[in-house]
Amino acid sequence: MAFGQISILGVGLLGGSIGLAMRKIQPDCRIIGYGHRQETLDRAMQMGAIDQGLTNVAAAVAGSNLVILCTPVGTFENLLKEIASALAEGCIVTDVGSTKRSVVELAEKILPPNVHFVGSHPMAGSEKRGVEFAQADLFRNAICILTPTARTDSEALKEVGTFWLSLGMGICRLTAENHDHILADVSHLPHLLAAALVAIQPAESSLLRGKGFLDATRIAAGDAVLWRDILMDNSKNLQHSISRLQQELQKIVSMLQNGDSEGIRQWLADAAARREQLGAEPL
Amino acid sequence: MAFGQISILGVGLLGGSIGLAMRKIQPDCRIIGYGHRQETLDRAMQMGAIDQGLTNVAAAVAGSNLVILCTPVGTFENLLKEIASALAEGCIVTDVGSTKRSVVELAEKILPPNVHFVGSHPMAGSEKRGVEFAQADLFRNAICILTPTARTDSEALKEVGTFWLSLGMGICRLTAENHDHILADVSHLPHLLAAALVAIQPAESSLLRGKGFLDATRIAAGDAVLWRDILMDNSKNLQHSISRLQQELQKIVSMLQNGDSEGIRQWLADAAARREQLGAEPL
Repeated sequence: MAFGQISILGVGLLGGSIGLAMRKIQPDCRIIGYGHRQETLDRAMQMGAIDQGLTNVAAAVAGSNLVILCTPVGTFENLLKEIASALAEGCIVTDVGSTKRSVVELAEKILPPNVHFVGSHPMAGSEKRGVEFAQADLFRNAICILTPTARTDSEALKEVGTFWLSLGMGICRLTAENHDHILADVSHLPHLLAAALVAIQPAESSLLRGKGFLDATRIAAGDAVLWRDILMDNSKNLQHSISRLQQELQKIVSMLQNGDSEGIRQWLADAAARREQLGAEPL
Repeated sequence: MAFGQISILGVGLLGGSIGLAMRKIQPDCRIIGYGHRQETLDRAMQMGAIDQGLTNVAAAVAGSNLVILCTPVGTFENLLKEIASALAEGCIVTDVGSTKRSVVELAEKILPPNVHFVGSHPMAGSEKRGVEFAQADLFRNAICILTPTARTDSEALKEVGTFWLSLGMGICRLTAENHDHILADVSHLPHLLAAALVAIQPAESSLLRGKGFLDATRIAAGDAVLWRDILMDNSKNLQHSISRLQQELQKIVSMLQNGDSEGIRQWLADAAARREQLGAEPL
C-alpha cells in the first residue's frame, strides 16, 4: 500500500489523528484536508496533520487515491453527493462513522461504479473534540471494524484493511447490520446511559463525584451532534438495547424489593467476573 | 492530633492504604490490624501497613485511641458488638462505609457512652481488592464525608476531620440520611448500571469493547460482597434513583420513536456541558 495522495474530509480529532499518523508512516503521501472552517484547516496545517486545507470538498478529493469521511454520519449523504463526480477513477472511499448500515447503503447508492467504497469503523477516539487533541498514535492497539458487502471490491477491502493495520489497529469484519446491532450494546447504549446518569444528578452531587462516577460518565462529554447522528441512525437497535437494560434493571429492583441479598451478590459477582475478563485496555 | 495507637479493622485496599498513609504522617503511631485471615495480616505487615496483626477483634482494639472499621458494611453490626466492651475509655470509632444511615444508627445503639463514634465515608478506592493494591496516597485529593448527629462529640468530630485532612482529603459534612440519598445517585446507581451494562452484553461484543465501554464499566469489577451490602443497605434510595433513571430513559425512547433529532441533540448537549464542568478528577 502506498497512496500518493489522500483526502481527509473533516479534520477533527479522528481526521487530524489520521493525518498525523500517515505523516509518520508514509511521509511522501500528500494529505489534503477538507473542512468548512478555514481556522480549523489552518490549525491542522500548523500541526502537520495535512499538507493543504480546502473548503471546497469536490476540489479536496480531486486526484486522491483514498478519501476518508471523518465528519458526523449525519453529513455523509450530502458529502457523498458532493464528491461523487469529483472522485478519481479507481479511488477508494472509506469512513470512520460509528454506524454502518445506513452509511454503506448511502455510499453504494450515491458513489459511481468506478470508485470503491469500504465501510470502516475505527473504534478509537475520546470525548475530546477538535484537531487540537489529534495524536498520531490514537488508533494504536484499537480495533477497526470493516463492513464489506457483496458489492465490495476485494482489492479495495484489502487496501483499506492494510491502511488501518498500518495505523496500529487490529481489524475485524462484520456485516453492517451486525455491526450496528452489536455497537448499540457496546457503545451507543453506554453513551446514552452515561448522559442519563449525568442528567439525573441533583446539584448537590457535583461536589461528591468520586472517581467511579467520573469514569463511568466520561463519555457523556462527547460531541452532541456527532452522538445525535449515531443514536438517531441506530435508533431501532438502540431501542432494543434500552429495553433489555430496562428488563435487567427491573430484575434488580425485584431483588431489592424482596431483600434477595444472595441474588444480588450473585448478579454482582457474575458482572464483576465478566468485567475483569475484559481487562483495562481494548484488544 | 497525635494518636498513640490506632486499630484498622479489615486490612484490605482501604484499611491497608490508611495504614501506609499513617506510617508516613505519624511514624511513631502504633498500627494494629484486624482480619480473619492470617495470610492477609502477614501481607499487610510485610508491606508496612500495620505493626501487628490480630485475628481477635477485641484484642485488636484494646488500648487504641482511634478504631476504624474498614470491612464491608454488612459486617459492622457484629463487629461493633464484639468491640463494644473492649474499647478504651474515650476511644474514637469511625468507619469507611459507603452507606451511613444504618451504620450511624447501629454505632450509636451498640457502642458504650464512654467512646465516641463519628461516621466517615472517604470517597476513595478502586475496583481493585486486597491489601496488595493499598497505597499511601489513595486518599489524596479525594473527599471524605462526615455524618455527625446531635449525639456526636464535637471534639471527636474535629479529630476525625483532622485525621482525614492529614491523609490529604477534603472533608464535608452531611446528615447520614442526606449522604445516603445523594450517594444513591452519584455512586450506587452508577455501580449498578455498570454491572447491568456488562450483564446484557452478548458474547460477540467482548472483542469490540472500546475505551468508552471499558471506562464506563470499570467499577463493575468491584467486590460483590462489598457492593451487595451497600446496595441492600441503601435499597430504598437506590430504588428511587433507578426509577428516575428509568423515567429519563423513557424520555429518550420517546424522542427516538418520534424522530425528535433536535430534542436528542439538546439532551446530549446539556449532559455534555454538565459532564464537562465536572472535570476529570474529584475535587
